[in-house]
Amino acid sequence: MSKIIAINAGSSSLKFQLFEMPSEKVVTKGLVERIGLDNAIFNITVNGNKQTETTEIPDHSVAVKILLAKLTDLEIIQSLNEIQGIGHRVVHGGEIFNDSVLLTDEVISKIEELSELAPLHNPANITGIKAFKEVLPDVPAVAVFDTAFHQTMPEKSFLYSLPYEYYEKYGIRKYGFHGTSHKYISERAAQLLGRPKEQLRLISCHLGNGASIAAIEGGKSIDTSMGFTPLAGVAMGTRSGNIDPALIPYIMEKTGQTADEVLDVLNKKSGILGVSGFSSDLRDIEQQAGEGNERAELALEVFASRIHKYLGSYAARMSGVDAIIFTAGIGENSDTIRARVLRGLEFMGVYWDPTLNKVRGEEAFISYPHSPVKVLVIPTNEEVMIARDVVRLAQ
Amino acid sequence: MSKIIAINAGSSSLKFQLFEMPSEKVVTKGLVERIGLDNAIFNITVNGNKQTETTEIPDHSVAVKILLAKLTDLEIIQSLNEIQGIGHRVVHGGEIFNDSVLLTDEVISKIEELSELAPLHNPANITGIKAFKEVLPDVPAVAVFDTAFHQTMPEKSFLYSLPYEYYEKYGIRKYGFHGTSHKYISERAAQLLGRPKEQLRLISCHLGNGASIAAIEGGKSIDTSMGFTPLAGVAMGTRSGNIDPALIPYIMEKTGQTADEVLDVLNKKSGILGVSGFSSDLRDIEQQAGEGNERAELALEVFASRIHKYLGSYAARMSGVDAIIFTAGIGENSDTIRARVLRGLEFMGVYWDPTLNKVRGEEAFISYPHSPVKVLVIPTNEEVMIARDVVRLAQ
Repeated sequence: MSKIIAINAGSSSLKFQLFEMPSEKVVTKGLVERIGLDNAIFNITVNGNKQTETTEIPDHSVAVKILLAKLTDLEIIQSLNEIQGIGHRVVHGGEIFNDSVLLTDEVISKIEELSELAPLHNPANITGIKAFKEVLPDVPAVAVFDTAFHQTMPEKSFLYSLPYEYYEKYGIRKYGFHGTSHKYISERAAQLLGRPKEQLRLISCHLGNGASIAAIEGGKSIDTSMGFTPLAGVAMGTRSGNIDPALIPYIMEKTGQTADEVLDVLNKKSGILGVSGFSSDLRDIEQQAGEGNERAELALEVFASRIHKYLGSYAARMSGVDAIIFTAGIGENSDTIRARVLRGLEFMGVYWDPTLNKVRGEEAFISYPHSPVKVLVIPTNEEVMIARDVVRLAQ
Repeated sequence: MSKIIAINAGSSSLKFQLFEMPSEKVVTKGLVERIGLDNAIFNITVNGNKQTETTEIPDHSVAVKILLAKLTDLEIIQSLNEIQGIGHRVVHGGEIFNDSVLLTDEVISKIEELSELAPLHNPANITGIKAFKEVLPDVPAVAVFDTAFHQTMPEKSFLYSLPYEYYEKYGIRKYGFHGTSHKYISERAAQLLGRPKEQLRLISCHLGNGASIAAIEGGKSIDTSMGFTPLAGVAMGTRSGNIDPALIPYIMEKTGQTADEVLDVLNKKSGILGVSGFSSDLRDIEQQAGEGNERAELALEVFASRIHKYLGSYAARMSGVDAIIFTAGIGENSDTIRARVLRGLEFMGVYWDPTLNKVRGEEAFISYPHSPVKVLVIPTNEEVMIARDVVRLAQ
């Protein structure tokens, strides 16, 4: 039986999920944390049981070696030969990659070049790629890009109204992120709706600590809220989303910070954390708002109202919408956010059921059966998309 | 008969319009340009005839003296006593002024304090105020703020998702501009629709060289596209509108420009000019696009699609919309932009007539009679709003 491992490598972490294909059964999954730091942690879940071990893991190659040894030691697999493909999540594929791709030396060096566009993410992804390449040099490996799904956006969507040479010389344009997630839920939505994706206009709301909205027409992303970086669009856990660009020089002058320091505030101290003043975690905010904390209530309103406006905006973008989909931590689990986001959209055909909306973390329709626009909750699954692309490209 | 003069002072210019009240008849109007520079120009229009004179005008006080002398010399008025009120356009009223106000010394010093928020505009406006105060010290004068109409926005609309103390300490929030224009056309739309403004949900599109969209519910602005400064929102003649805020540090690094220099690019070299590469004037762009220039066509698409998306967004904001209104240079005159902006909004009840849409520069309905959402063209008139406020406050 063919096994495929899906990898998401961060600068000091490595997430993995092992699939049996084509059944798409998750055989095991886990997370290595604090790689290169003291007291690294190795987590693995087998048959629903989570095992945690603290050890020294100096680099990603060692993490990969420990992981592979665990797989045989715990008899999850009999031999490493069973692993017939590796899929790596890569954040930025620029304009070069509009689909997943087999990892050759040439592809790896192109991903390295793209680090300029994603200096925090691509180098970490490459570390993971190289670690597997060292330990399993003969197993085909595939890169799956967060940006690829959005490469179908037309120029009027992706171009900023800046001097055109900024696009030509520096690649300044909207790329969009969370593409693998938006693609997964749009395809799954088409299945649940029983209609070919080519006939559908979907708005997909990936609402986690990072959040983005996508307009998906005929199975293709034609607009999305994140931009050149994942900072843009709606307010998020700690990110500001769109603001008046003139505020950056103003904040620099007022606070004496450099442009990079202000950018750090916009990425790490804004959003729900900035407005509430105490947490980026929506669960904390909802609890405090329920207890009458006005700033928590305000953070909820700011967060939800930006998303609500995107729904109208993207319905206009597609001359209407057939279904709205919620996914990721907040989208799958917070009925109160979904309610705030959906309220008052009857004018565009959205009728939803407060009782159905109570669903948490599972696939469900939350619109009334008669609603012209369907509303769904679909837990996202980027890992299975990675595994599928490995099967498709490694054969 | 009472005469009121409406003034819009720039750093080297002075626009004026003299009204007879309460008839609101325009007795004369004109423009002084190049104040303080060589070869200043004095324009005045009497009975439809424009007179132009080149002379030396060292400062705004001299401009005001020449203007008043002209009014009597040309027998437009018999005596300066006929001028019973002066209205000054002031760009920024901050959170202090939610309505027009009689200009006392205290008010003037508050407007001076607000120069920090509008360093290019408020000082010029104050120059005009002081010049009239010197020459006509006993005539009541009123300030009419571009921001005042938007002071009804709720916190969820005006607050950025930045650290909350930026709002408290530095006044960082969305203020919105073009308020006098949005107020005028929303009130005029209510008259033309024959319905009380309290019952209406309007989206007003002020599309000139600067452009902003406002959501007006029950006669009150509840959201608008411009922000802390007039840079934010849709793409404009030379302004970028919203971009990913992370682009500012990126452009700084790539081009070696300072934050202020990048801001200058965003204000003066972006928008329609930036995308097309040759002009900020929509008429040039439309002509070139018609002749097959692809970058001109792209500039039109970028400009129109941003506005189109705001229509959906603000319809969502108000749970629907009763009328959409176009005003200002482009909004009143460009049927092709209106067509691009309005196309594909049938899903939210917007049905418009391509023949009616050919109207230029006059009040007209361009929606079909059966359209649930009405669409109107209404030439804006900020000056008459200023004159009305002078009458209201100076008595």
